[in-house]
Amino acid sequence: MSVPIIAIDAMGGDFGPHCIVPACISCLAEYPSLHLVLVGQSELIESLIARHSGVDRARLRVEHADEIIGMSDQPAQALRSKPGSSMRVSLELVRDGVAQACVSAGNTGALMALSRHVLKTLPGIDRPAMIAAVPTQAGFCHLLDLGANVDCSAEHLYQFAVMGSVAAEVLGAARPRVALLNVGTEDIKGNQQVKLAASLLQQAEGLNYIGFVEGDGLYRGEADVVVCDGFVGNVLLKSSEGLAVMIAGRIEALFNSSLVARMVGLLALPLLRRLRGELTPAKHNGASLVGLQGIVLKSHGAAGQEGFKSAIRRALREIEEDLPRRLQGRLDKHLL
Amino acid sequence: MSVPIIAIDAMGGDFGPHCIVPACISCLAEYPSLHLVLVGQSELIESLIARHSGVDRARLRVEHADEIIGMSDQPAQALRSKPGSSMRVSLELVRDGVAQACVSAGNTGALMALSRHVLKTLPGIDRPAMIAAVPTQAGFCHLLDLGANVDCSAEHLYQFAVMGSVAAEVLGAARPRVALLNVGTEDIKGNQQVKLAASLLQQAEGLNYIGFVEGDGLYRGEADVVVCDGFVGNVLLKSSEGLAVMIAGRIEALFNSSLVARMVGLLALPLLRRLRGELTPAKHNGASLVGLQGIVLKSHGAAGQEGFKSAIRRALREIEEDLPRRLQGRLDKHLL
Repeated sequence: MSVPIIAIDAMGGDFGPHCIVPACISCLAEYPSLHLVLVGQSELIESLIARHSGVDRARLRVEHADEIIGMSDQPAQALRSKPGSSMRVSLELVRDGVAQACVSAGNTGALMALSRHVLKTLPGIDRPAMIAAVPTQAGFCHLLDLGANVDCSAEHLYQFAVMGSVAAEVLGAARPRVALLNVGTEDIKGNQQVKLAASLLQQAEGLNYIGFVEGDGLYRGEADVVVCDGFVGNVLLKSSEGLAVMIAGRIEALFNSSLVARMVGLLALPLLRRLRGELTPAKHNGASLVGLQGIVLKSHGAAGQEGFKSAIRRALREIEEDLPRRLQGRLDKHLL
Repeated sequence: MSVPIIAIDAMGGDFGPHCIVPACISCLAEYPSLHLVLVGQSELIESLIARHSGVDRARLRVEHADEIIGMSDQPAQALRSKPGSSMRVSLELVRDGVAQACVSAGNTGALMALSRHVLKTLPGIDRPAMIAAVPTQAGFCHLLDLGANVDCSAEHLYQFAVMGSVAAEVLGAARPRVALLNVGTEDIKGNQQVKLAASLLQQAEGLNYIGFVEGDGLYRGEADVVVCDGFVGNVLLKSSEGLAVMIAGRIEALFNSSLVARMVGLLALPLLRRLRGELTPAKHNGASLVGLQGIVLKSHGAAGQEGFKSAIRRALREIEEDLPRRLQGRLDKHLL
């Protein structure tokens, strides 16, 4: 394998370069062959790098980009009026072969629109999708789409299923069970798009389509890949994060409710804290944009250094496995 | 108030009359003025009642109904080919003024279709919705629709918002904050129906509409009423139940992971078990169908006796507050 080079949009996310620069420097120490290009306001980035000693600058380059895409910028605005944004320049480095992947914690809608515009989708794919691993009782399930596409046709759901299946294989699942998320498991259940997507998937050869799964079935681990439109996926992911945070808070409150409970709590809390990270996967592990002619990772806007490092690690894995090329090979066989 | 009489579909749910009959007998003991009509296969029901001593039969009547609607029956099938089903007869008791409310743990789609057919919707309401209270960091939030309507227009979402606001008031919230569930809080976010519903709600007078809320915001308690289509609501509710069960399981596993952890766990588990019931609200408290000319409660199909009793209690509350009449009064003011 050639040397992995990743372009980093250093200006995105709630904490921007103040979080991203230290995360990158830590990853460079962890992966001795990794090269990073930090894209953004070079003066600020250089000043943040200068705070660290022993940084291998041969593997860390800064590329200046003047503009920043804000969290409330519309995708169309990001496309048309900010040609020099750090997000766009990062993606152009991938398009031009300077880097093999891009990681951004910025505006999701803008990242989707710019990725599609700069990198283009794979032949046969209308829209890229966002996919992340969600913890289940059985391990993990790959859920897509997570918010990139709020209005989806049956054909889009079908394409998501094919892409999700390949992405799950690349990340280690053998013959992944693919399911459509629905409000019931009987054939008669669901909205029009889901019912039509089911009939398309039933005819798809070489795909291990297992039918419908419900919200609770997802967490029971009934499928390895769960497909839904971006509205539903986004609501599921964010509500799960919110619920996990609420439960963690209630447990702490419970252990503060009396003196005895507090003593038990002192013993139990270290155990319970281990759970927290596992339960907010997108926040900690990032999500991939699949269906593009290039690798793009979205780190959670509110992710800290550990979250951003996880996104870089996932980008490395997708580079190693050459996800876009493998997807292309499978899409040629599967797409209608 | 007149004597409360509730019609019970005794044949529904995963456990049928074996769970429902004891739950009803327990409720009769709890509420000395309550009258119940148990509808279903009278021989079986009578034999189950006979197992209990001291039952006040003056307040417990059995009404024979031969047919049962199965969990996989299509709504159209339930409507056309089973005129003598326990579910339908229970609803007819409400229509005919014999009972003031109906409680069923049966097939949700059939209950919705039969309720609409037998009881009719309130003037100005196209479709009834299903609403339940979900626990949040701030207390509760009333979420609708929960699966009755998988394809919704903006007008339907608007009607749900009005109904949800009144239902929340009846259940104790003062000037409830009403929000639309969305994938972001900015105006530009969302699918077509949600964006259009937002513009309808912004113009609605007398409704405390606060804008969009995301899945995590719901659990942070940002709104008292959260409105979404039935597909999204069903996925949110079921995935939350699945996640809560998974977290509870992981906590138990964590406390079994070593001898020290097991000892801490012995002390902590009673506290943690208290959480479980709170976190699966629909399973434990039932959901209301709102927008009908009558009170209909849906108990969770997998609910045990405690769950069914909660649904009866909620029915009693809605009878006391005369929810349909109050809804009607408000709808006249609010609807377009």
